[in-house]
Amino acid sequence: MLQLLSVHLKLPEWFASMRTTNRFFDSDNAKMQFVLDLTDKNVQNDTGGPFGAAIFYQKTGELISAGVNVVVSMNCSIAHAEVMAIIFAQHKLSLYRLGDGYELFSSAQPCFMCTGALMWSGVRRLVYAADRHDVESILGFDEGPLPEHIENELTARNIRVTKHLLRTPACSILQSYKQRNGVIY
Amino acid sequence: MLQLLSVHLKLPEWFASMRTTNRFFDSDNAKMQFVLDLTDKNVQNDTGGPFGAAIFYQKTGELISAGVNVVVSMNCSIAHAEVMAIIFAQHKLSLYRLGDGYELFSSAQPCFMCTGALMWSGVRRLVYAADRHDVESILGFDEGPLPEHIENELTARNIRVTKHLLRTPACSILQSYKQRNGVIY
Repeated sequence: MLQLLSVHLKLPEWFASMRTTNRFFDSDNAKMQFVLDLTDKNVQNDTGGPFGAAIFYQKTGELISAGVNVVVSMNCSIAHAEVMAIIFAQHKLSLYRLGDGYELFSSAQPCFMCTGALMWSGVRRLVYAADRHDVESILGFDEGPLPEHIENELTARNIRVTKHLLRTPACSILQSYKQRNGVIY
Repeated sequence: MLQLLSVHLKLPEWFASMRTTNRFFDSDNAKMQFVLDLTDKNVQNDTGGPFGAAIFYQKTGELISAGVNVVVSMNCSIAHAEVMAIIFAQHKLSLYRLGDGYELFSSAQPCFMCTGALMWSGVRRLVYAADRHDVESILGFDEGPLPEHIENELTARNIRVTKHLLRTPACSILQSYKQRNGVIY
């Protein structure tokens, strides 16, 4: 078999019906609610794990990109929601480092891989809903050996962290994924 | 601007001229030498950072996939060599978790993000040449706050680690990238 020279990373088809362009959000709550709506759609449509993320330009509140977990459908363990959102934002803006003013909202605390991805991305703020303990206790995913004081490491790299925004509804989505017997990998 | 629904991740064009199919390697040294050749080609062709990786099936020595760093050319901070190799291997085998017998060779110790990617990938063995201190001291990349005993964390997840294989030639490639004033991001 030939070594392929390119691979497509795709979001689920239902994404096409989401309004994601010229869309502005005026509060952290509204941004996170949008991310949780995506996350819930990913669970309800059985298109991936119960995780969503989006990148916004803080000054204007503009939605830059959004992603959901498509690990199973894409056969790609890299395709976490945060990674998808970062890839699409950088592709859209033609930047390999986003820089000042970009913020990533995630339905759950980034795992070890996604925390590293965040550090390279150039994003300057991370906002998440459920934390790693919620994910591990509800679903049993192994989020990896994140250092205890990972927030300090992020702060040291100019990434501010806001946690537990809309945590309860985010945990409800994790629960509903579990009840649907979603794949745990 | 529309939210795109898919993104292509591409390897450099010179990859097409590499023999990567039906190719078998009979030793760790030969595998690593192949990876260092890719790494050197990436530097000499100015197609990305000085990092290469490949995945092999240990039992037969078959080359499954290979990747190089294409962060700048792809405008994608996720596109490290290890991530590319994992994406292509999983795509080729239609597996989101590789499982027993797959090993990843990398020209340098995986950064924080790639260490996380490794844990999700299903790869069972990691072999690297230069270590993070080589990369940091020669190039000044920030490899992230990897836990001091990361090898133990990998071992605990059934990933064996062999380090410093062909470290000296790997460091020479890092040096040559520096001498060419390659982008440090």
